[in-house]
This record gives sequence, C-alpha cells and structure tokens, in this order.
Amino acid sequence: MNMDEVLNEALKLYKPTEEEEKNLSNLAEKIIHQAERYSSSYPSIRKITIEGSLAKKTWIKGKEEVDIFIHFNPEVSREEMEKQITELGFKTLDDLDGKPRLMYAEHPYVEGRINKVVVNIVACYNVSPPNWLSATDRTPYHTRYILDNMREEARDSVRLMKAFMTCCGVYGAEIKVRGFSGYLTELLILYYEDFNKAVEEISRWRPPIIIDIAKHYSSLDEVSKLFPNQPLIVVDPVDRYRNVASAVSEEKLCRLVLASRFFLKSPSIRFFKPKPRVFKRAYIKRIMKNRRIVGLSFRLSKWKPPDVLWGELRKSEEAVKNTLKRLGFQVYRTDSWTDEEKICLILCEINDDKLPYARLHQGPPAHHPNSLEFIEKWKNHPERLAGPWIEDSRLYVLRAEQITDVKKLLRREIQEGRVSIAKGLLEDVKKGKIVTSIEDLMKDGKLKAYVNEFIEARLPFI
Amino acid sequence: MNMDEVLNEALKLYKPTEEEEKNLSNLAEKIIHQAERYSSSYPSIRKITIEGSLAKKTWIKGKEEVDIFIHFNPEVSREEMEKQITELGFKTLDDLDGKPRLMYAEHPYVEGRINKVVVNIVACYNVSPPNWLSATDRTPYHTRYILDNMREEARDSVRLMKAFMTCCGVYGAEIKVRGFSGYLTELLILYYEDFNKAVEEISRWRPPIIIDIAKHYSSLDEVSKLFPNQPLIVVDPVDRYRNVASAVSEEKLCRLVLASRFFLKSPSIRFFKPKPRVFKRAYIKRIMKNRRIVGLSFRLSKWKPPDVLWGELRKSEEAVKNTLKRLGFQVYRTDSWTDEEKICLILCEINDDKLPYARLHQGPPAHHPNSLEFIEKWKNHPERLAGPWIEDSRLYVLRAEQITDVKKLLRREIQEGRVSIAKGLLEDVKKGKIVTSIEDLMKDGKLKAYVNEFIEARLPFI
Repeated sequence: MNMDEVLNEALKLYKPTEEEEKNLSNLAEKIIHQAERYSSSYPSIRKITIEGSLAKKTWIKGKEEVDIFIHFNPEVSREEMEKQITELGFKTLDDLDGKPRLMYAEHPYVEGRINKVVVNIVACYNVSPPNWLSATDRTPYHTRYILDNMREEARDSVRLMKAFMTCCGVYGAEIKVRGFSGYLTELLILYYEDFNKAVEEISRWRPPIIIDIAKHYSSLDEVSKLFPNQPLIVVDPVDRYRNVASAVSEEKLCRLVLASRFFLKSPSIRFFKPKPRVFKRAYIKRIMKNRRIVGLSFRLSKWKPPDVLWGELRKSEEAVKNTLKRLGFQVYRTDSWTDEEKICLILCEINDDKLPYARLHQGPPAHHPNSLEFIEKWKNHPERLAGPWIEDSRLYVLRAEQITDVKKLLRREIQEGRVSIAKGLLEDVKKGKIVTSIEDLMKDGKLKAYVNEFIEARLPFI
Repeated sequence: MNMDEVLNEALKLYKPTEEEEKNLSNLAEKIIHQAERYSSSYPSIRKITIEGSLAKKTWIKGKEEVDIFIHFNPEVSREEMEKQITELGFKTLDDLDGKPRLMYAEHPYVEGRINKVVVNIVACYNVSPPNWLSATDRTPYHTRYILDNMREEARDSVRLMKAFMTCCGVYGAEIKVRGFSGYLTELLILYYEDFNKAVEEISRWRPPIIIDIAKHYSSLDEVSKLFPNQPLIVVDPVDRYRNVASAVSEEKLCRLVLASRFFLKSPSIRFFKPKPRVFKRAYIKRIMKNRRIVGLSFRLSKWKPPDVLWGELRKSEEAVKNTLKRLGFQVYRTDSWTDEEKICLILCEINDDKLPYARLHQGPPAHHPNSLEFIEKWKNHPERLAGPWIEDSRLYVLRAEQITDVKKLLRREIQEGRVSIAKGLLEDVKKGKIVTSIEDLMKDGKLKAYVNEFIEARLPFI
C-alpha cells in the first residue's frame, strides 16, 4: 500500500460514520438536558456547553468522550463551585445510570460512563482571556479557536494523527502517558496543514521544538527563555503564557519522532493497527531463563483518580529503582502498571537476584583518631573477610554481605521505611508481595499482556 | 614488658655483636683489596670507599650489606664510567665467588652475594656539592653527614627504627616497598633524637609532613611549594633540592603512623618479631568458599633487576585491575608478587567469576540519523534480550553478554592487546595461566606464604 491507501484504510478504522456522530451528539444533548433540570436551582451557573473533541468534531472511534462544561459566575468561590459541580455531576449522571466518580485534575470534576462512552462534567468560570480563574476556563476558548480556524478537511488529518499517536503510545496528556493532548494534536495539524506534512515535519524534529501559531512573540528565543528545559513548546493561541505541550515527556516526544521517520520510510497500516504480541508460556520460560526480574505487586485498598494513582506509582517505581541501586544491584530498566482499579505492579529487570558475597567497607584515614578503634572493631569481626588494609590514606576491610537475596533485602528496606514509596501507596505496598518469578506473574490473566510488553520492551511500531 | 624492656629485647635481636661487626668490616676490606688490584689499570678511578650502613655503623642483623663506592674523575663520560664499573665489578666479585649481576637504579651497578651478604659495587663521580653529575654522587656526603652529626648512642635508635619499619613492611626505598631508605631513617632519628621520641612524633603525623633538618629554607611553605603533592618531605641536608623521602608512598607512610600509634598504645616485642600466619588447607577452603579470586600467574623468560621487574609488575597489576573493571567486574583489591627470579603472580579479589547475563547497550539519540539503522540492526539481533526502547532521548537495548566467564574474558583481552601490560612482561604474560582457584595456587610451595597474606590482607602489626 502507498501512503494514500494506508491513510484511507486508517480513516475507515477511526472516522466515525454520520450515524455514530449523531448518536454521540444525541447522548450529549440528553446529558445537557438532564443537567439543566438541576442547574436552574444553582443561581451561579451561567450556561452549559459541550466542549472537547465532540464539539470540535475531531473524535475518533474507540475514544468517544462527552465533555460537558458548566460555566460559573466568576464571583462564586472555588470551594462553592467545587461543591456545586460535585452535586450537579453526581445527580445528572446518577439519573442516566452513569456511575459517577469524583476525579481530580487541578480541580475536581465528575466522570461517568454511559453506554461505554466516558462522560465528564466539568466546572469552569465564565471569564474572558486572560482573566483565568481556573485551569479549565481556557477550554471553551480552545474549542472556539479550533472551530474558527480549522478547515473542514483538516479534521480527518486530526483523526489520523490521534490514531497514529494512540498506536505508538504517545496520545494523552495524563500522567500515565505524558504525551499529546487532543488540543495539542489539533494545533499541530493547524500549524502543519495536514497529516502528511505534519508527519514529515515531526520526523525532522530535534528537541527543543518551539511553535508559536498565533505569533504571540516576535522571536523564538523569547519563547524558549519563558519555558526553559521543555523539549516541546507550543504556545497556546488563547494564552501566551501557557505551553500546551508542557505534559509531553522527552521520551514520548522522541518516540513520536521515531515513529514518524519509520512511517515515512515504509508506510503501513500496521502503524494504525498495533498487534500486541502475547507469547506462549514455554517461549517465555526459555527467554527468561537467565534474566532476573524483581517485582512489587500489591492491591489497592481504595480507589483513587488515575492521575493521582499513576503519579504515586511512578514516584514509587523511581524509589524502588534507587533502593535497588543503593543496595548494590544494577537496574537495567523499570516500569509500572495498574488496572487503575485493584492491582498495581512495579517491575525491575536487574543483573542478579543476589548481591555479591562481599563489599568494600571504608574506614577513617589512618591518621584519624578513630582509626585504632576501627581496627580494634574489625580485626576479629565475624563479618570480616580480609583487612584492615590501607589504600591511599584510608583504612578498608572486605566485609561479608549478610543478606544477599533481593527479595529479603527489598522487603527489609520497605518495612524499615528506607524506600520513598508515595505516601498514598505505602500501606498497600507493605502488604504486597515481592516476586522474582515471571511465571508467577503470568498466572494472573490481567497482568499477562503487560508482562509480555515488559519482557519485550520494544517500541510498539517496530 | 614495658617499653624499655621491649626495646632491650629488640636490640638483642638486631644489634650485631662486636665480632659480627668485625667480620663484616673484614669482608669489606677484602673486597676493596681485590677491587684495588684492578683499579690501578683504570686511570679515571680516583679512590675506593665503603659507604652505607656499614660505614655509618647502623646496620642490623639480617640486613648485612657491603656498599663499595668507586669514585671516578668527573671528566670521564657517563658511558665510559658505566663500562668500567661493570668490568671492575664483575672481575672483583667473580674472584670472590660473588655471582655478580648487573643492576640498574638510575645508572648501573654490580651486585653480588658473598657468604649471604649482599655486596654492591657502585660508581660515583668524585665531585663536591652541589655539582652532582649522577644520583650516587651524594652518597659519600650522606655517609659523612651522618658520621659527623650522629651521636654514638643514637645508632641503636637507628637500628631499632630500621627493625620496626622492616617488621611493619615499610623499610626500603625500592619499588617493591616504596618505603623508607636507610638514610631517611637515620635522618629521622637525628631529627627526633632517639627511637622513643621518633615513634611518638610519627604517631602524631598527619600528612603532608615537612622536615628540614639543616634549615635550608626559612619557611616550610617554601619547601611545600618546591615539592608539591608529596606526603612526606625530608629535605636532604647535603642537597637542598632533593626530597630524601620522595619514594615513600602515602600507603606506607600511613602504615608507619598507624604502627607507631599501636606500638605506643601497647608496646610489645611482637612489633619486632612478626609471625607470618600460614593456614591449613581446610581452613582456607572454608573461608574462601564464597570468595572469588582471579589471578594471572606467569614465568619470567629472563632475569631483570628487581626494581625494573617490580615497576613492570605494578603497572601490569593496575592494567589488569582496570580491565576487569571495564569488563564489568567489581574489583575489591589487587596485589602482585614475584620471587624476583622466575615466578610472577597478579591477584585480584572480585565480586564474581561471571559477568551478569546482560548489559545495557546505548544507541544514538532518537532524532539522530543513525537511529533507524540502530533499530533495524537490533530488532531481530540474536543478542537482543529486550528493546529497543527510549530513555530520556536515547535508544537502548538490553544485550545478552556472550562471554561471561572471567577467565575467558581476561584471556581474550590480553591476547587482543587491550590490557596495558608492561611491555617487558607482555610475552611472558601471554604464555601465563589465568587461575581462579586458590587451592591451585597453594599447591606451589613458594607461593603459599604470599597467598596466605593476600587472603588475609591484614596489616602485619595487627
């Protein structure tokens, strides 16, 4: 297939039909209707609108989402607004059997699910730029900016780009992904005109990349000083002080660049249809024979919003990695996973499941008053293997490692509070299991696909 | 025993009797007599003298040595002088059945052995300070300085200090030891008056230490600028530009400080009578069960002066250590040994005799033109375990280690010339053996004591 054929094929997979568009719009209308029945009793609510990809007509199949924004009088306190959006959201979604949950981004919103469609009921202040009072106040202006500036035909390009990004694992600004938001994707298509040109430009990106669509600044130098150390800067057309791409990690940025280069080199529908590889147990047993994994698996005692959970999980992953290094292991790579409901897993691939038999133990300099004491202590110490000897000016002994097993060591460090696990997870982690057997992990059906991915650690588009 | 009793006891061990003094003097006279029979046919020889510890009457039992100095006319070329001292030395010692050998310090001299006494026949130029033409020209002035300045009673202190230093392994300026020369020991006793005071002062040393006995300089600052980065500076009374202690390593300096502190804390004859501990094979087997040693054992294809050999051996030891580290091993400590005739051994204690199963292999940054090539190369590479993935902005794969055995790895690195073994030893090393079994090494009776010492790595006075 050539490029055009691939993109046509991809559009068939991701572009909603007219009927599907209609159904989603009808659902949105129904929710607004329901919300309006309650909003009349909240005098601070000014209006209710549809925002996001539905309003902008850029949504893709499989990512249906309805974003309902409730616009509040700017004079209402933040606290009061939060109270009211929670009440209104829960009532509205309960009526529609939407299983509402309170979510926190920068401020709370209510999320539900109706016929498998994610519904967000979000509060914003009814303000004009640049008088933002909360993070969501910009959203209606984002919607309007895209509607005012994007040609009808560019919407398919947005859909292709969202699908492409999803398949290479970089779509979404949430902490789990640290990738590209829908609005950012739309701005990239606006800026580069269409999907083909965007992919070509992205394939040549070399971070840092600076894009100022609305020409808020006269020079890119000025922009780069304002947003230091960010690999991708896309100045928000509706707010010159905001980088729309601030959530994008260097890793995900690089991944998109590489995927674009690969795609241009050999366009294929496989960039839009990733096949997760699931291996047979015997195969895994064989390839893992010499490899060493240590994992921390635990159950969540209570639900929390995914962004909070992923933030805590990444922090804890880093803490486990640093602990293993401090103990003397080589850590080749680490990753985490959660079903966002019950199960969490932190995995590390390490050089060995045992520490070496000994370690160098440095004493004071020979001329230091404590050196005699050090020698007295170590000369017949049960952990002494060799020494004390002098190297440069310091005393050393070779000391036997008492505990070498990674499971026991990690367990001890966690129990004794020497691993900076995120506070919100600490109790659950303490009750968790430390595993070193991939086969044990594979027994859990939910974990299987993820564990496969971890073993492979291959970029999804290769 | 109190301090005085210990020192009396030590003197009994080390102070030669009058008869022993007489015998050594007679031997020296005999050698001079023999040398003079030849020297008449060398018109550039001005005179022949006895120097060193025999002349200064500071020698100790077990370290008998006769230093015969042949004084040359300063107008004789270096080359001619070297030729003549070699001829004269060989003839003289051959006549006395002294098995002469040509040795190199800064310039050549001839060493022999008569009735187990080491005899050195050394050339110097007959010059006055500061018109030195060669390194040995100062020696007759050192002898005279000590004879002129040292009280009769201080000689016993010198003997005690030499014995004390010998027993803690810091006596001798040769490369093997990197410790204190006889002249340096004499100067320390001159400076501190007697053994007790010297030990007390040394026990308080904190490097750098500066001593200027003849007050050549008005401030110590001036001295320290002239001899930068030296842990011990003792300005030569006969040459203000020379540090008598330049050969002393920081390690040996610290060792003497520690030994002095220990001795003062609990004076004992054991500081003058070290007992080398030789362990039973079963004991060694037990304590070495988990420990990992790799050794390089080789035979010398030709004899060379010890200072040359030890220099090459230390350089090669450092090279082996660096190679093991580069390969991925932890090296806890290293040492070398040679009988100075046939056998050499370099030993390293390491964390494991195998490398981990894998290592991280870093590729180019994702935006680099070579990154596609890297991915193509690695995606189905037989050594690939996981990856390629992106971390920060770079590509990585986890690569299987093909050879993990330390013996095979070290053998390969040596054969392929990637270990900076001293040139003079390279061919012998290539024909040598790499061993990982302490028991194999212990089979060689000559090595046994040394291997014991290596296993223990304990300061000798503890």
